[in-house]
Amino acid sequence: MRVPHGIDSKAFSAAVRELEGIVGQQWVFTSEEDLYLYRDAYSPFWGEPEERLASAAVSPESVEQVQAILRIANAHKIPIYPISTGRNLGYGGAAPVYSGSVVLDLKRMNRILEIDEQAASCLVEPGVSYFDLYRHIRANKLKLWIDCPDPGWGSLVGNALDHGNGYTMNPFRDHFGAHCGMEVVLANGDLVRTGMGALPGAKTWQQSRYGFGPDVDGIFSQGNSGVVTKMGFWLMAEPEAYLAGTVMVSRHADLVPLMKAFSVLNNTNAMMATTRIGSPLQLGRVFGVPPEPEHAALLDKPGVTPDELEAYGRKNDLPYWTIDLKFYGGTEVVEAQWTYAMRVFKSAIPDVQFTKGDRLTFPLTDAQAEAVQDKASLGIPSLGAFFVGARSPNKPVGSHGHFWLSPILPLSAEAVLEAQKVFAGAFREWGVAPLYRALPQLYSPRAFYLLFGFEVSEDPAVNHKTRETVRRMIKLAAEHGWGEYRTAPAFMDDVMNVYSYNNHALRGLHERIKDALDPNGILAAGRCGIWPKHLRNGRS
Amino acid sequence: MRVPHGIDSKAFSAAVRELEGIVGQQWVFTSEEDLYLYRDAYSPFWGEPEERLASAAVSPESVEQVQAILRIANAHKIPIYPISTGRNLGYGGAAPVYSGSVVLDLKRMNRILEIDEQAASCLVEPGVSYFDLYRHIRANKLKLWIDCPDPGWGSLVGNALDHGNGYTMNPFRDHFGAHCGMEVVLANGDLVRTGMGALPGAKTWQQSRYGFGPDVDGIFSQGNSGVVTKMGFWLMAEPEAYLAGTVMVSRHADLVPLMKAFSVLNNTNAMMATTRIGSPLQLGRVFGVPPEPEHAALLDKPGVTPDELEAYGRKNDLPYWTIDLKFYGGTEVVEAQWTYAMRVFKSAIPDVQFTKGDRLTFPLTDAQAEAVQDKASLGIPSLGAFFVGARSPNKPVGSHGHFWLSPILPLSAEAVLEAQKVFAGAFREWGVAPLYRALPQLYSPRAFYLLFGFEVSEDPAVNHKTRETVRRMIKLAAEHGWGEYRTAPAFMDDVMNVYSYNNHALRGLHERIKDALDPNGILAAGRCGIWPKHLRNGRS
Repeated sequence: MRVPHGIDSKAFSAAVRELEGIVGQQWVFTSEEDLYLYRDAYSPFWGEPEERLASAAVSPESVEQVQAILRIANAHKIPIYPISTGRNLGYGGAAPVYSGSVVLDLKRMNRILEIDEQAASCLVEPGVSYFDLYRHIRANKLKLWIDCPDPGWGSLVGNALDHGNGYTMNPFRDHFGAHCGMEVVLANGDLVRTGMGALPGAKTWQQSRYGFGPDVDGIFSQGNSGVVTKMGFWLMAEPEAYLAGTVMVSRHADLVPLMKAFSVLNNTNAMMATTRIGSPLQLGRVFGVPPEPEHAALLDKPGVTPDELEAYGRKNDLPYWTIDLKFYGGTEVVEAQWTYAMRVFKSAIPDVQFTKGDRLTFPLTDAQAEAVQDKASLGIPSLGAFFVGARSPNKPVGSHGHFWLSPILPLSAEAVLEAQKVFAGAFREWGVAPLYRALPQLYSPRAFYLLFGFEVSEDPAVNHKTRETVRRMIKLAAEHGWGEYRTAPAFMDDVMNVYSYNNHALRGLHERIKDALDPNGILAAGRCGIWPKHLRNGRS
Repeated sequence: MRVPHGIDSKAFSAAVRELEGIVGQQWVFTSEEDLYLYRDAYSPFWGEPEERLASAAVSPESVEQVQAILRIANAHKIPIYPISTGRNLGYGGAAPVYSGSVVLDLKRMNRILEIDEQAASCLVEPGVSYFDLYRHIRANKLKLWIDCPDPGWGSLVGNALDHGNGYTMNPFRDHFGAHCGMEVVLANGDLVRTGMGALPGAKTWQQSRYGFGPDVDGIFSQGNSGVVTKMGFWLMAEPEAYLAGTVMVSRHADLVPLMKAFSVLNNTNAMMATTRIGSPLQLGRVFGVPPEPEHAALLDKPGVTPDELEAYGRKNDLPYWTIDLKFYGGTEVVEAQWTYAMRVFKSAIPDVQFTKGDRLTFPLTDAQAEAVQDKASLGIPSLGAFFVGARSPNKPVGSHGHFWLSPILPLSAEAVLEAQKVFAGAFREWGVAPLYRALPQLYSPRAFYLLFGFEVSEDPAVNHKTRETVRRMIKLAAEHGWGEYRTAPAFMDDVMNVYSYNNHALRGLHERIKDALDPNGILAAGRCGIWPKHLRNGRS
């Protein structure tokens, strides 16, 4: 049996027996075979000594069992790493940040506790996936939409706590921002309900956000001071119609007025869905459609100028930049929004071009829902995104997994052009190439995520080089004022280290809260670079 | 000289001299005359021994001075009560929650540090008022809107930290929800920047919300563990047009389909501005327009039925219920939204009636802006709301001030009708009448605020009875699952007491964070019912 670092193996055996007493023997996992499932399948340390591994896993079915498990962990000073459901691929999987922790696997707590059609809200446990909630809504013919990230098997609670994002309208696509109310088991086993939930018999736990007094919910997001056992969310009422369109400009310099016009729409809430800047000309098609040979040669030419690319674009009818727009609402409203958006772009860039995309009305039949290409924009969960990355028959690149790095940029042409230049220059200098050429994506309402993907290899030497590249990128981005919003466990200390204002004052604040709420330091040690007192000297 | 409770008067004099050394003698106030300005002009304890009074006030002009003041306060264990700017009338004014505290008056820190037109965001100090920011925007002809609460003299930072609301679109009208990034001086004097601000040279401090790791901002809202010295906000880009309209139904029972239809619009983001349920028939016009004598007689008739009121309404063309709608966006978009909204209501209630209201395009000239009646809906700060309440020449009722109580209700007809019945019954039983008949207001995106106003009197016996009424209402509301989102200092312990789930577990969590961040308990003791350890036994 594996044993957590610094714990006596006899004491650990005793603790495991206590855990079995709480959840039943079949829900405590200690064999190598069982624990294989808690490895990070996409670990950038796969097979190396630094790979983070669980010493055991325990899967409770109730809040009371979670409380009892934490009390046992405190008594024995056993490190615990809570996970919800889904795969968390690219962000560490189910493996603990601090190797040797016991994984607290909440997958069995998978009840949809409340769903209110008129209020458009729900209360769920951590084991509820996007698929679960979507199927429940379809089966009961509720006029509600969910907002989901790329893989539909993820947990609503887990994704929101990790500051994950989706693709429909604000505020729903900011999954933490669209939550309303929590139930949390603190590290010492105390049970707390936040917001309006602190009022016994509350009628607006999932409707009114702040309750009374300080709003504590945020400290449990990307945090390690409590285990969230229930979480409320605002859902979107099913809109009458959906309309998509694409805006296209032909010149490199058009990005400046394009982004200015887009910002007006974005900042008046006229365009509220996730979008991205595309550049069929400069970046080539992403995800597996390779450019024509002449185009590819041009893209590979050292020092190729925007003029040369523009000329190729004119000849081949390829826009330099594109933005996808999506509208939701009444049938006449989505048409008016598209008309208005075209007017705004036209007045900024007279020769701008447009393509009108999908126009749908709801509800969709099951067959229609199945046939939708861009499912995420309609809140339909799928596993479609897995055509990128590992072990998929249609994968465009050979890989044993991937992970992401997303420096956050201002929503401006200047920022996008500067970042492209900075990273392209660095990649040339370092002799590396990420999984694909990054496009700025508007996951957050007011900032771009510049998404880079990296492959995991079977060869530790390759993984070593990739890790070095990512660490250099984190520092390079920070030098330009761009930080990451989330990262894989391998890089959590690196990212937290660049958030260093005033001698790491914010980390110091996190540590003071951590010490107050988890004095034995049992919960999710090292998560987001926050370590308990007894492990703080060891942090990088 | 007044002296804080439990502090030796010599030690306090020494501390005052130290404070003078930091900010200059002219910015430390200890005379009765100066401290009169820090009394709560609307105190429900006016002139009684329980009135909360400052022992002194100190007004720094920089973050460094705030840090130095807190260090002195820690050294001498002097209670400090931070305020921003404005009047905070109805919620305690400038007076400390814990009598004898030294008020930390941040009004001199009134710089607009950044304002970015394309990003539609700003970074401000606590002394910046809505008037200040609005005038800066007008003077520089920026195409930006602010969202302001009723009185324009309030502080953006103070109102947001108190979970205040405004009247334009989501997310802007939830002032805390629309903030992005903070700078906080912790109780021990440490300076922390949150969110992306923890990254030195951050480019998205006011654009990207969460930074990396736990989101700590919420613990400083309605809290007492730090002094917020800078705060970023998302602003709204100036829309092209605005359109208002009113929906009217004639029957009491129409409220059910009316609220159902409204919820669809609200929960698809088709209607995103503050609105309220009106009932010209059942409630009479609020704010000073008295009903006709026949109508008044009917309203005063014990046991008057909805049928009788409906009959009066048919005869006199008065709707039973109304909802005001407001739309912002492209000219064709606001028209389409109004058309769509009418279609939704019509399909739910075939004989629903509509009135189209203001239709404006922007920018407005100064004269046009001045002439606007409903200024708050266009983010134009004013003092217009002061026609209600005290010491105004046009006041509809004689009063020496007022304060508010707002139980939060679900956004449904059933909840509104139940709450009206519960409170009307209680008022009859208790023999009391609040300042005006409460209407449910949609300040928050998903819940109603049932706003009751109470008058302050010159007669302590009247104020005593009013306080008892408010305390009974807080308990009565809690019995029905309705909690308050904010309250005057006189009632903070009462409100926190009803948020009692699991033996006051949430308050216990607040106290653990408070003790960790403010071990000497110097900051804003008692705010929102959170007391430092040494005063906890005394709490009600």
